[in-house]
Amino acid sequence: MALNPKRTVAELKELRELTSDEHGAQRVAWTDTWVRAREWFYGKLAGLPVEQHLDAAGNNWVTLAGRSKKTLLLGGHLDSVPNGGWLDGSLGVLASLEILRRFADGYDGTPPATVRLVDWADEEGARFGRSLFGSSAFAGTASIEADRGRTDREGVRLEDALRRCGVEVERIGEAGRERAGAAAYLELHIEQGPVLEGLGLPLATVLGTKGVERHAVTFLGQEAHSGSTPMGVRRDALAAAAKLALEIRPIAARHKDAVATMGSVKTFPGIVTAVVGRCEATLDQRDLDAGVLAAMHREAREASERFAREERCTVEWSRIWSIEPVPFDAELIGMARAAVREVTGADGPSLPSGPLHDAAEVSRAGVPTVMLFVQSLGGISHNKIEDTKEEYIELSVAALDRLAEKAANWIGGRGGE
Amino acid sequence: MALNPKRTVAELKELRELTSDEHGAQRVAWTDTWVRAREWFYGKLAGLPVEQHLDAAGNNWVTLAGRSKKTLLLGGHLDSVPNGGWLDGSLGVLASLEILRRFADGYDGTPPATVRLVDWADEEGARFGRSLFGSSAFAGTASIEADRGRTDREGVRLEDALRRCGVEVERIGEAGRERAGAAAYLELHIEQGPVLEGLGLPLATVLGTKGVERHAVTFLGQEAHSGSTPMGVRRDALAAAAKLALEIRPIAARHKDAVATMGSVKTFPGIVTAVVGRCEATLDQRDLDAGVLAAMHREAREASERFAREERCTVEWSRIWSIEPVPFDAELIGMARAAVREVTGADGPSLPSGPLHDAAEVSRAGVPTVMLFVQSLGGISHNKIEDTKEEYIELSVAALDRLAEKAANWIGGRGGE
Repeated sequence: MALNPKRTVAELKELRELTSDEHGAQRVAWTDTWVRAREWFYGKLAGLPVEQHLDAAGNNWVTLAGRSKKTLLLGGHLDSVPNGGWLDGSLGVLASLEILRRFADGYDGTPPATVRLVDWADEEGARFGRSLFGSSAFAGTASIEADRGRTDREGVRLEDALRRCGVEVERIGEAGRERAGAAAYLELHIEQGPVLEGLGLPLATVLGTKGVERHAVTFLGQEAHSGSTPMGVRRDALAAAAKLALEIRPIAARHKDAVATMGSVKTFPGIVTAVVGRCEATLDQRDLDAGVLAAMHREAREASERFAREERCTVEWSRIWSIEPVPFDAELIGMARAAVREVTGADGPSLPSGPLHDAAEVSRAGVPTVMLFVQSLGGISHNKIEDTKEEYIELSVAALDRLAEKAANWIGGRGGE
Repeated sequence: MALNPKRTVAELKELRELTSDEHGAQRVAWTDTWVRAREWFYGKLAGLPVEQHLDAAGNNWVTLAGRSKKTLLLGGHLDSVPNGGWLDGSLGVLASLEILRRFADGYDGTPPATVRLVDWADEEGARFGRSLFGSSAFAGTASIEADRGRTDREGVRLEDALRRCGVEVERIGEAGRERAGAAAYLELHIEQGPVLEGLGLPLATVLGTKGVERHAVTFLGQEAHSGSTPMGVRRDALAAAAKLALEIRPIAARHKDAVATMGSVKTFPGIVTAVVGRCEATLDQRDLDAGVLAAMHREAREASERFAREERCTVEWSRIWSIEPVPFDAELIGMARAAVREVTGADGPSLPSGPLHDAAEVSRAGVPTVMLFVQSLGGISHNKIEDTKEEYIELSVAALDRLAEKAANWIGGRGGE
């Protein structure tokens, strides 16, 4: 059975048909639609010489034994955000399935390394606000205590929703057992950004996931009447925040590839007739280099303090969340670049990923990791209009196959039992 | 009975005791507490040779007949915002009462002109969003059709709330009959701003009320992922709005005494991980000169279009509300300045009023008008901490009395039946 990327496209459409409504994909983790997606996927394994099981965190593992017990992991996630797209996550799973079939058919059924497909549980965190759920359990970075109390919008507890799917929250750490033998992890994903489209290219090698510094920045001035308060005596918290909204851009520009976003601004009292007394903003800064990220954070903080002084306000920072940059494996990056070159006939770009992926957790667990990106039309994801040209989807499956072949031989060739 | 400004302070405290709770004054128009405030006020009229009635819009008129049927109007409003202060509005009413007593006692009970105290209904518009309700009915600028459909937060219709207080919304235009004979209108009010406190002075003559241009300004860009969208391809609606928030200040500075405020900014989707695709801001610009106001509005609009182009966004303007500047009467301004000089021993400043007042509606009706401001501590109003030094309250009552005396003689001396 030769690799058949057109089958991957057909299966992605089949899944879309089964799990979408007029608003988009509805494969939210721990819901009936997600369970139905997985049951549909189990049906695709019929006749393959594989072992399948769910681990203690609800990740779905499909294993094709090879000459070496060292394992090549190929991953993705069937779960989506509500009203999501047809490719985000599911492309990785179904491309991996096609490559598993190809390995099962070649090498007389015994590839150089053991090949495992993993469908991570709850990558998106859309229902309970805990993204990378399954992969962090695998990596051993999840804290049960931090997640136990989570509820969804209807007040359903995470613990109860997981139990319905056969997952006991107390035991999710046991998913770490799946790390045994893991020697490489590969993940194909849509880019979710506009870079490849801007370059007119189908595929990129991913260098790692950017670190994130995410903060709430609150400026405090003095509420005052918009009619009776002369300009010269105002303490306008919005003015200080506006200066910061503009200053984060030159700060990012000083550091190539870095990004910085003020995504939310709230004004208080927030009425047309009052000078803003309190302004709450959010700042999200990302870079692949930890030193750059720290410098950007420091520069933004210093700028905010300068703007607060200029406007006779005060400013307070509060960290919402942060994660360190996760650079991927240099040898696998080389193989990924070669795979892209082989299927497209030219070198492709190498990009850091701004969004996080399960690959970041796997890499943090010490497993050599790399990802491939395929172009997203309009750079849009998490939306029903998310799309990628079918010829590019097919190219991406072929590139992942070339990469998996190289990685399996790399693992197998390094010996081990 | 000589003028007794200390009695005014005592009566203001009595009213505060009767109509405030731990959050401040609760004399919101058309509520039971407001009705109670008015009933308390009626009690103060006992023994005075006056006629009292409510007009068709709920304004309360107290008339002391004089030699001339031409009338001097002295006004204020007993209604407050929720959680308001003890002086905003009620100072004007109770100072006017003290002056009515003084006129009733002097001139053998027949002053040179007829003197009328008016307690305007619903100056604040706090419950139904329609400020200057009673004075605009008096002035003939109110539109029943625009107000009929208004409801409060509990869904009570304006029409029904007014009927409980004896006001038929169909008939409020009949309040215009009260304009007959009106020859001057005087109003004492707290400044609600920091100018007099900054100058260390108790009293100011008010030159008029500033015109207002109030607009919703919406920038449209493109929502995008904060991690995957390079800085160079973003269309950040917040950045365009931030530039405008800063630019309205030099625009105002080019026009002495003008003010401009961005009081509300809303970001959409307004989440930490997305570039702002839509930013809704409000802009409030004020000046006493209609030409300056028009120029400021035009300059802000042009700046917003330039910023939209720079950020590859679009911008839409929508007028929320506007009112032309209302300059007060030159002769009455001269008398007000003389009155301030007489009671303080020195010239006081002359200021435009940023906030609107019933005096603006009266002036628009063609009645010569002037106001006096007394210092506000911290420039704060619409808050339970609103305050003014008692010695300054007493000075302000004395100044209003001096001004009323001059105005009554001016009216009486001009003849008429």
